[in-house]
Amino acid sequence: MSENEPCFDIAHLGHVEMLTNKPEKSLEFFVNVLGLTESGQDEDSVYLRAWDDYEYHTLKLTASSTTGMRHVGYRASSQAALERRVAAIESLGAGIGWSDGDQGHGPAYQFKDTDDHLFEIYFETNKYEPSEAEKPALKNQAQRNHSRGAGVRRLDHLNLLAKDVGAIREFIPAALGSRITEQIVFDSGTVAGCWFTVNNKSYDIAYTQDHTDTNGRFHHVTFAVDQREQVLQAADIFLENDVYIETGPHKHAVQQTFFLYVYEPAGNRVEVANAGARLILDPDWETVTWTEEERKKGQAWGLQTIESFHTHGTPPVP
Amino acid sequence: MSENEPCFDIAHLGHVEMLTNKPEKSLEFFVNVLGLTESGQDEDSVYLRAWDDYEYHTLKLTASSTTGMRHVGYRASSQAALERRVAAIESLGAGIGWSDGDQGHGPAYQFKDTDDHLFEIYFETNKYEPSEAEKPALKNQAQRNHSRGAGVRRLDHLNLLAKDVGAIREFIPAALGSRITEQIVFDSGTVAGCWFTVNNKSYDIAYTQDHTDTNGRFHHVTFAVDQREQVLQAADIFLENDVYIETGPHKHAVQQTFFLYVYEPAGNRVEVANAGARLILDPDWETVTWTEEERKKGQAWGLQTIESFHTHGTPPVP
Amino acid sequence: MSENEPCFDIAHLGHVEMLTNKPEKSLEFFVNVLGLTESGQDEDSVYLRAWDDYEYHTLKLTASSTTGMRHVGYRASSQAALERRVAAIESLGAGIGWSDGDQGHGPAYQFKDTDDHLFEIYFETNKYEPSEAEKPALKNQAQRNHSRGAGVRRLDHLNLLAKDVGAIREFIPAALGSRITEQIVFDSGTVAGCWFTVNNKSYDIAYTQDHTDTNGRFHHVTFAVDQREQVLQAADIFLENDVYIETGPHKHAVQQTFFLYVYEPAGNRVEVANAGARLILDPDWETVTWTEEERKKGQAWGLQTIESFHTHGTPPVP
Amino acid sequence: MSENEPCFDIAHLGHVEMLTNKPEKSLEFFVNVLGLTESGQDEDSVYLRAWDDYEYHTLKLTASSTTGMRHVGYRASSQAALERRVAAIESLGAGIGWSDGDQGHGPAYQFKDTDDHLFEIYFETNKYEPSEAEKPALKNQAQRNHSRGAGVRRLDHLNLLAKDVGAIREFIPAALGSRITEQIVFDSGTVAGCWFTVNNKSYDIAYTQDHTDTNGRFHHVTFAVDQREQVLQAADIFLENDVYIETGPHKHAVQQTFFLYVYEPAGNRVEVANAGARLILDPDWETVTWTEEERKKGQAWGLQTIESFHTHGTPPVP
Repeated sequence: MSENEPCFDIAHLGHVEMLTNKPEKSLEFFVNVLGLTESGQDEDSVYLRAWDDYEYHTLKLTASSTTGMRHVGYRASSQAALERRVAAIESLGAGIGWSDGDQGHGPAYQFKDTDDHLFEIYFETNKYEPSEAEKPALKNQAQRNHSRGAGVRRLDHLNLLAKDVGAIREFIPAALGSRITEQIVFDSGTVAGCWFTVNNKSYDIAYTQDHTDTNGRFHHVTFAVDQREQVLQAADIFLENDVYIETGPHKHAVQQTFFLYVYEPAGNRVEVANAGARLILDPDWETVTWTEEERKKGQAWGLQTIESFHTHGTPPVP
Repeated sequence: MSENEPCFDIAHLGHVEMLTNKPEKSLEFFVNVLGLTESGQDEDSVYLRAWDDYEYHTLKLTASSTTGMRHVGYRASSQAALERRVAAIESLGAGIGWSDGDQGHGPAYQFKDTDDHLFEIYFETNKYEPSEAEKPALKNQAQRNHSRGAGVRRLDHLNLLAKDVGAIREFIPAALGSRITEQIVFDSGTVAGCWFTVNNKSYDIAYTQDHTDTNGRFHHVTFAVDQREQVLQAADIFLENDVYIETGPHKHAVQQTFFLYVYEPAGNRVEVANAGARLILDPDWETVTWTEEERKKGQAWGLQTIESFHTHGTPPVP
Repeated sequence: MSENEPCFDIAHLGHVEMLTNKPEKSLEFFVNVLGLTESGQDEDSVYLRAWDDYEYHTLKLTASSTTGMRHVGYRASSQAALERRVAAIESLGAGIGWSDGDQGHGPAYQFKDTDDHLFEIYFETNKYEPSEAEKPALKNQAQRNHSRGAGVRRLDHLNLLAKDVGAIREFIPAALGSRITEQIVFDSGTVAGCWFTVNNKSYDIAYTQDHTDTNGRFHHVTFAVDQREQVLQAADIFLENDVYIETGPHKHAVQQTFFLYVYEPAGNRVEVANAGARLILDPDWETVTWTEEERKKGQAWGLQTIESFHTHGTPPVP
Repeated sequence: MSENEPCFDIAHLGHVEMLTNKPEKSLEFFVNVLGLTESGQDEDSVYLRAWDDYEYHTLKLTASSTTGMRHVGYRASSQAALERRVAAIESLGAGIGWSDGDQGHGPAYQFKDTDDHLFEIYFETNKYEPSEAEKPALKNQAQRNHSRGAGVRRLDHLNLLAKDVGAIREFIPAALGSRITEQIVFDSGTVAGCWFTVNNKSYDIAYTQDHTDTNGRFHHVTFAVDQREQVLQAADIFLENDVYIETGPHKHAVQQTFFLYVYEPAGNRVEVANAGARLILDPDWETVTWTEEERKKGQAWGLQTIESFHTHGTPPVP
């Protein structure tokens, strides 16, 4: 399989487990400012989802002594597809083994990418069933839309930092069957950024280079809103709620996403974004490669990338 | 394969061939009002595409003595996938055979649905290569966006009329490997409408019941814009250009699409639509079934469905 | 002074006192669904305002045995301007006399229009002073924007029903110094609708013909949102909150307002609207007159005016 | 009259005469990229207007050996009001005298502000009469909306540079009867910026400090679009048309305008903006004063003001 040929074994990004050392403030942010809904809790974690996420959770917020991401989960297209992926991952020597899952899903196979981030893949899932009070007016959406805070619709993607994005570029397609839709390759040959997708979204995970000498760090998680105007409204909501806005709203040159980046109270970066009607429908899409020169132009409308975008990750580097 | 399990052999809707008995006026509409770009012409047809459609054409506009749709084309995910679909279609007894293709794509296998609409599936395609003047500022889109007229981004879906939608509900998943995302089933058991998808879009083809005693008619073709605001702007553009607006802008209850329907000069219905960030990511999505009672509520915000929506199709019934 | 020459004595529409026989449900609607903020209460009334209304209140919601409007208030440009208006109204024989005002403003001069609606004009007002918790992030807006419900920004206009709009067309400019920006005049000479403004907004009050044999009825009050997209969002919010949507979202031909009409729980009609950047800056604007024929085309994009729009007013006719 | 009490003698900003040393390229920009319409030409100038500007022109583009602004025109509310303003200006010792006007308007009284910018005020104007081809579908707008390029609706405001904004703060209200809605006053007492209005718009002219030792320079002219989404679309249009984007889209803290700044081909700065539903309706609005400390926070959502915004004006400083 060439890197750009679709594999389809993995259906979509499922969830991100985020660590916070300010659990109450982080929860307040995700529920009342970003607009997520709580599905349940266990000892250290709160399970959260956006109003049109169909699974029990898409964000697992876990109290910890630090910040960053504990793991990322992807859902397979079927049980057979899951088994194919496990075999592929084992042949890469990256596998850890099976876990029992949690409140949100069934058995999950765990592995690590080449930069020490923990992944899991699963098929059996706990679909969200709305209570009477949460039943939507239109039965073809997961839950009543409360239009609370930024009112994000669904989990969109995440971004991880890696020391060697070139190695990741080999690993992710091999492990997940992802296609590489876009990448940044510097004149030196260094892969500065790489965007992957398992489906028609233009990306569900991105990696960018960590300029510190650290592995396994987290850059951001992104929730999608339906319209660009809602990204602008989110900016006003963050402003009124004293949320630190790092950069945006603006439009990325890479992937053309309309973006807005903030830090939740514990310091993890969160993005609210809109991709318009852009999808990757072409089954033999050729990877778009951006050069060092091209990236010097900044974002689509000329905004220079803010310095902290290259340095701030979680957990912080000691 | 259950009706809702993804098959992935077909990648996406490729193009629609529309017949017009007012070819000059229709072309003027599609280029200057809807905002499509011409890729080329042959004896009777003009090949058109939206600015982010990656193939040579997504709309083939063909001069004729009548109106309606001559054929619809779907692109397969690979050559092997194409062959799997051909075998499936032949086993259904619906196949016609191979054609050489046209300016837009290579060899195509033709077949008919149970209501006498002509389909073709193909893999080899003629990807659009922008001339110097049409090169976009951002290299990850197909063509320069001229923001001309309604400025639609890409082909989205089509809707066909059928005498027996129940038969179609069996046929399309068997032929294309599509999933049924939503349907309307009346108390009598009649399937009044059915929405199908081969990928993560919530539908690429829909069928609704033809109340006349006719087969093979066309309801509408839809192009997507990036934002709901652009659907509103399109309404203003249609108003200023004397284009007949049938209904909308409003939001469908079924599929929640934000819609606007007009008739191009020859009478074929065309939709400009926006789906927000709604996608079908769930690989085991359960079909949403709307009852007769539920559909009496009209569209999402209460607009009653206009009578002509149930009666106007092309070609007109004698 | 010709009808269209600006007078400037009256600065703007100040507030509407609305009667409700379901005070708790109406209050819940205005606060949690429309997004107004409560400034205070007295025995029978709750004083409400939108987040960028600078006065203490723009909607006074009063418990009553019936529905409709008790009075409408306009603020004068200065004390001297107020006195000029009082003299003009007295010379029309329409004056009632001075009241002490209420929690929201100082002494007000009361009068009735030719259809028995109660008006008051005042200059001294109680400007809203936000508490610490309600202080906005940007000091040039009246209050923190909570983005709650439809999140309306400010009072925009009201619409009253009248048996004889022709008489009103003479009265309002004479009493308030308003200009007539648009009107509907039927072939019979009947004035079917008339739109007035005292400032650069294209209207602050409109009158339309009451087809019942009744005086003094109320048609609707309107709050403005910043963007058309927010009118669409409001439609979704009304849908999720079981609020009856009468018609819209759509664009009026008259005044080009992008509108959405609902009934609050007691039956009073409420509009959420956006006018874009449209203003009447021309000091000698000529009244736009719509004919009976022109109005048969329906709204801007072809929506036919819903029947209840001509019949539903408050209080209901016995 | 206090500085904030409305005077109303001046109705609105009428037009700006802009100098260009690249007249053909500038004209191409204003017509095809910004979307203005040409009303006529004389020896050195082209008269342009936006599709809902009611006068013959709002931008007079004049070929010259340099760039910048030749004059700004304001329209009075009536002939009597014009005469009151002439008397006031003469008493300030700032008057120059009467000119005959041009294609766009009748006799105009000329004067200079304290920083050597040329102004004129007039009442008699040449209202735009659309040809048959330019007649709008809705008779209550000035012209057919072609939705060409950025598709701006109307002239909004202009911004001038001045050595001594403190002197300007005295002069403009005295000359035009404007109110000061917002200002920036540094700890030293220096007035760094000042925003004035003659009507309900929150400003029609702004002055900011010129850090070079120069008088009479021009900062930018602004055209309004109906929706924030159209500012975003304008950014895409500028990107595709190689127009230099200086900064934005973003939201100003001062006045809360949603802005986008570009340089037209000759180097004059042009803004496309949207103010939402924000108006100054309060007749005794108190000037909002921003401190040096407050302005260090940058724009509303945290964007730091770009350096060239403080240094780039036209004509360039030798």
